[in-house]
Amino acid sequence: MDFPWPAVGTPLADVLTPLPVIDEDRLAANIKRTQTYMDAHGLAFRPHVKTHKIPAVARQQIAAGAVGLNCQKMTEAEVFADAGFDDLLITYNILGAWRLARLAALNDRVARLRVVADSLVAVQGLSAAIGHGKPLMVLVECDTGAGRCGVQTPQAAADLAARIDAAPGLAFDGLMTYPPAGGAARVEAFLQQTMALLAERGIACPTRSNGGTPDLFQAHLVPSATEHRAGTYVYQDRSMMRAGVCGPDDLAMHVLATVVSRPTPQRAVLDAGSKALTSDLLGFTDYGEIPSLPGARIVSLSEEHAVVDLTGCTVAGPPVGAQLAIVPNHACVVSNLFDRMVFHRDGVVTRVEPVAARGTVW
Amino acid sequence: MDFPWPAVGTPLADVLTPLPVIDEDRLAANIKRTQTYMDAHGLAFRPHVKTHKIPAVARQQIAAGAVGLNCQKMTEAEVFADAGFDDLLITYNILGAWRLARLAALNDRVARLRVVADSLVAVQGLSAAIGHGKPLMVLVECDTGAGRCGVQTPQAAADLAARIDAAPGLAFDGLMTYPPAGGAARVEAFLQQTMALLAERGIACPTRSNGGTPDLFQAHLVPSATEHRAGTYVYQDRSMMRAGVCGPDDLAMHVLATVVSRPTPQRAVLDAGSKALTSDLLGFTDYGEIPSLPGARIVSLSEEHAVVDLTGCTVAGPPVGAQLAIVPNHACVVSNLFDRMVFHRDGVVTRVEPVAARGTVW
Repeated sequence: MDFPWPAVGTPLADVLTPLPVIDEDRLAANIKRTQTYMDAHGLAFRPHVKTHKIPAVARQQIAAGAVGLNCQKMTEAEVFADAGFDDLLITYNILGAWRLARLAALNDRVARLRVVADSLVAVQGLSAAIGHGKPLMVLVECDTGAGRCGVQTPQAAADLAARIDAAPGLAFDGLMTYPPAGGAARVEAFLQQTMALLAERGIACPTRSNGGTPDLFQAHLVPSATEHRAGTYVYQDRSMMRAGVCGPDDLAMHVLATVVSRPTPQRAVLDAGSKALTSDLLGFTDYGEIPSLPGARIVSLSEEHAVVDLTGCTVAGPPVGAQLAIVPNHACVVSNLFDRMVFHRDGVVTRVEPVAARGTVW
Repeated sequence: MDFPWPAVGTPLADVLTPLPVIDEDRLAANIKRTQTYMDAHGLAFRPHVKTHKIPAVARQQIAAGAVGLNCQKMTEAEVFADAGFDDLLITYNILGAWRLARLAALNDRVARLRVVADSLVAVQGLSAAIGHGKPLMVLVECDTGAGRCGVQTPQAAADLAARIDAAPGLAFDGLMTYPPAGGAARVEAFLQQTMALLAERGIACPTRSNGGTPDLFQAHLVPSATEHRAGTYVYQDRSMMRAGVCGPDDLAMHVLATVVSRPTPQRAVLDAGSKALTSDLLGFTDYGEIPSLPGARIVSLSEEHAVVDLTGCTVAGPPVGAQLAIVPNHACVVSNLFDRMVFHRDGVVTRVEPVAARGTVW
């Protein structure tokens, strides 16, 4: 069916809601500010595409000086390879015959492709899949406190690096970590200790890839890192504002919504539910912030409704039909819900981009 | 790009994960059991398509005896109208010029189309859009305790019904409510009081539409209702099991996932994150249940990872590469994340259906 994506030139007041929209000037400023910081500190910068999933935005990031892209899944990397990007790091253990065969094919057509591994099972799979072609570059994923994937100690990292170094078809390229906020000292210690162990074994470790938006502007506190990865910085969101990495004027994404019901003086219901905002709380107790309604709280979501409690709201409640802008808790997950993303400058639509990598979970 | 949807006949052990899958026999049993109950109590049954978003599944529901379909948004209704369904109830306030124009067009091509309204603003918009064509049937949405949309009192319901009754182009058709679990007595009282007020004014109220899966099999406790709407019953999920409306053998949807990392003896990381499960908690403190790992808890999700705490798990932890089935907290939101849905019988793929109404937020 023909969905009502707005034409270029449409005022945002006239678009159908719910709709996430991106402010072009803030987007450009976020890209420039971050790249300028990385350049000043001699860090390579590798944006994570998960936040936008849009090749055109990735081109803006590369044009600003980013060295390449960070992808999370095989199919996501394929979308960006198809769009012509030639330096991709997939920060995920690639497992299973289908993915491994696709990875081998991708390695042949992308100039610089790298993946990570945190287990011998993963390394063995990669080695068996690559065979005698162009070697696949592999980084060891290290858990520096985030409690997700990754080897647990520098010793384990060095041991796995040695297995990669010895595996047919693979080339050990370094270390990768995704630390929790405030983890700089721990990351630096982990990297230094692992590099020392690798040096003892005579194994080169050219890449040390650190990541995360919350500590973006503390990336220089990890001097052993050679590059930094970040995704959310490009749009920013409510959780990043809470982390102090951006202010309200840096928020490039808002989700536009319309008041569809005012059942009581204290309650407004919006047309943006979990199909538009997602139910990500990220430590908040409500589902987004409405700058035009200070003190109002989005207290619950169903798929197509947001219930707003106006009890603490310091301004007049909005009438049925009013359009509101919501700052989402988490920008990346909103991108994954829409086939296209609408961009604007000063409230007028500038372009509508396909979210090419939406749904690339494989 | 060519996504790896499995072919008919593929064993589920060979599909790429993360992937939600639907058990054909349980799906059929859920449809039959619910329709049998509704038939026994003389209630018309109107499935909510939000759970599956698939015309082929809606055809199974209609074939079993459902009178028509319940949609939540204009574009969702259009998808099902395009698929040939001719009795649609949109349980949402339809606002704005674009939607109202599309609604007027839909009213002309669908044999029986009905919408709801809970405000004079909504009624005035509907009346202005419909003009002199076929009258549009409108129900008044009533808030019987769910705290979402709906007029607050029987008096307000009767007053709005009178406005609809008098509005050019519109025909008042009755009352609609979506109550909280355990709300039968309150729904019955609200309906009876409103019907009495309407009778005093000489306004017919042919339809009284009640809804919800949690109290599905208590629908007969609202004798004034003429029909019941439910969505989740068709797949069922963890929240419905907790509500007692189904047991483990009724769960038709599982999300298949693969162990991608075992960083510690107490931690497993799966490839199903919030892009596969959503972050809907629905009152749970974890993000789904893994029947094959009793005592394990999915303690956190990021977009592409689920972190499983095995501390309380009473069986051996799964190795890297193992495939697991997850019972999602909420089935409906999972459907909205995938372009197609894979069905199986006894673990062998039977069909792959486009999720035609995925993303229909307008």
